[in-house]
Amino acid sequence: MCELLGMSANVPTDIRFSFAALARRGGETGPHADGWGIAFYEGRGARAFHEPEPSAQSELARLLRRMPIKSRIVIAHVRKANRGRVNLENTHPFSRELWGRRWTFAHNGQLKGVKKWPLAWFKPVGSTDSEHAFCWMLDQLQERWRDLPSPTRLDRAVADLCAELNTLGVFNMLLSDSRTLYAHCGKRLCYLTRRAPFGTATLVDEDWRVDFAQETGADDVVTVIATKALTRDECWTDVERGHVLVLRDGAVHVLTPTGRKVAPPCEG
Amino acid sequence: MCELLGMSANVPTDIRFSFAALARRGGETGPHADGWGIAFYEGRGARAFHEPEPSAQSELARLLRRMPIKSRIVIAHVRKANRGRVNLENTHPFSRELWGRRWTFAHNGQLKGVKKWPLAWFKPVGSTDSEHAFCWMLDQLQERWRDLPSPTRLDRAVADLCAELNTLGVFNMLLSDSRTLYAHCGKRLCYLTRRAPFGTATLVDEDWRVDFAQETGADDVVTVIATKALTRDECWTDVERGHVLVLRDGAVHVLTPTGRKVAPPCEG
Repeated sequence: MCELLGMSANVPTDIRFSFAALARRGGETGPHADGWGIAFYEGRGARAFHEPEPSAQSELARLLRRMPIKSRIVIAHVRKANRGRVNLENTHPFSRELWGRRWTFAHNGQLKGVKKWPLAWFKPVGSTDSEHAFCWMLDQLQERWRDLPSPTRLDRAVADLCAELNTLGVFNMLLSDSRTLYAHCGKRLCYLTRRAPFGTATLVDEDWRVDFAQETGADDVVTVIATKALTRDECWTDVERGHVLVLRDGAVHVLTPTGRKVAPPCEG
Repeated sequence: MCELLGMSANVPTDIRFSFAALARRGGETGPHADGWGIAFYEGRGARAFHEPEPSAQSELARLLRRMPIKSRIVIAHVRKANRGRVNLENTHPFSRELWGRRWTFAHNGQLKGVKKWPLAWFKPVGSTDSEHAFCWMLDQLQERWRDLPSPTRLDRAVADLCAELNTLGVFNMLLSDSRTLYAHCGKRLCYLTRRAPFGTATLVDEDWRVDFAQETGADDVVTVIATKALTRDECWTDVERGHVLVLRDGAVHVLTPTGRKVAPPCEG
């Protein structure tokens, strides 16, 4: 298995606090030592970093802990390989262009038989079931629309594709087209939204404490989503299995498998 | 204008010596301060780094000068913007997947009217004429073959597409599919091949001197290609305008616009 980390915010936001916890789980406080990657969207582009080595010992990951890269959408992953060799082309997050948008995808779980699902245009570079699933999703979207559809239509289509993939096994995933962050919970995923009044938080795995009131503006809305809670003194909400979170500008919308929208617990 | 740097080698090779010279031209010894990027192939994957800021002052570029990333194919670029804003999505090298291969592209020059050339599948994420040209090339290749063709067929097709683009202005470019490095000279490009017996070399812009006999194995073949000579005590060969260099495992083949293969000067 692997671990996922995602962020959606309404202002460019520094993710170093959360990334520090994830990076240590890559071979130090967790067994995910088979590679790591992170993509920071900036406009329609993304700064992406990948290494097929443990993040806990990585000089590049240490540099990222020092560099204040601010982003409104982030997807990160630490890998414990189960399908596909440990190498660069099998290191998440994966990326492709569709409709002039840069798409980024990371997955945790296993999808039995997905490699038999035919692909027309998008082909895997590596050998993971995850990348095959990503290519299949983009193929399906491209077949349906020649240009970027409205957000609502795209949300529904992504949720339907997630539901199909989820029938093959465990499909925890993060996906973005540079506008929206999608998260599907196959088995385990949780999130929290930070907004005013901001409090303090302490990482689960180390004694790093942040006072968000000092770090953020009054109107900031930041949602963080992760496989396991990253802080020990905040209230994380478990995503229900089969639900898709649709995150834009930090705001959370929940889509159920049948397409009904439900209010997220923190606002309901 | 911008500057290009490419490398093809028969063994994973450290490019830091050459990259140091290029990085300083990004805002220090040269005016190319509008961003920089580098892609290091490793198998079918690539480690890629991009910043829309000057490389000469970049902490990330400094880290890369310390990290011994070894690669058999490298493409790097420092940007002086003429078309397209200074931002991440306009920062070379650009990357796409075609036929399950990761393609990387960097360009120096201007292509007047290329944005009017229609695109079917590959669409630019940013607004440069360069990325449009890259998308057009991949569109043309995808239209011709559904799967990766033989190297010889692909070489000829790439050279023909370069010749078409070159009619629009200046098309100095580097392109790779993870197997071959292609270089087209529209106006200015030079290269050299290092092989036994190895000598020493000193960078043009600073007093960094390397003794390649200490750094390389007896069978290593390394070809470096750049906009301008990077060392002051080696013999760089200018590529003729309209010629395409096809580089595999460090070996150089020259394709002329009419398709005739010519022996490179160093071996002729």
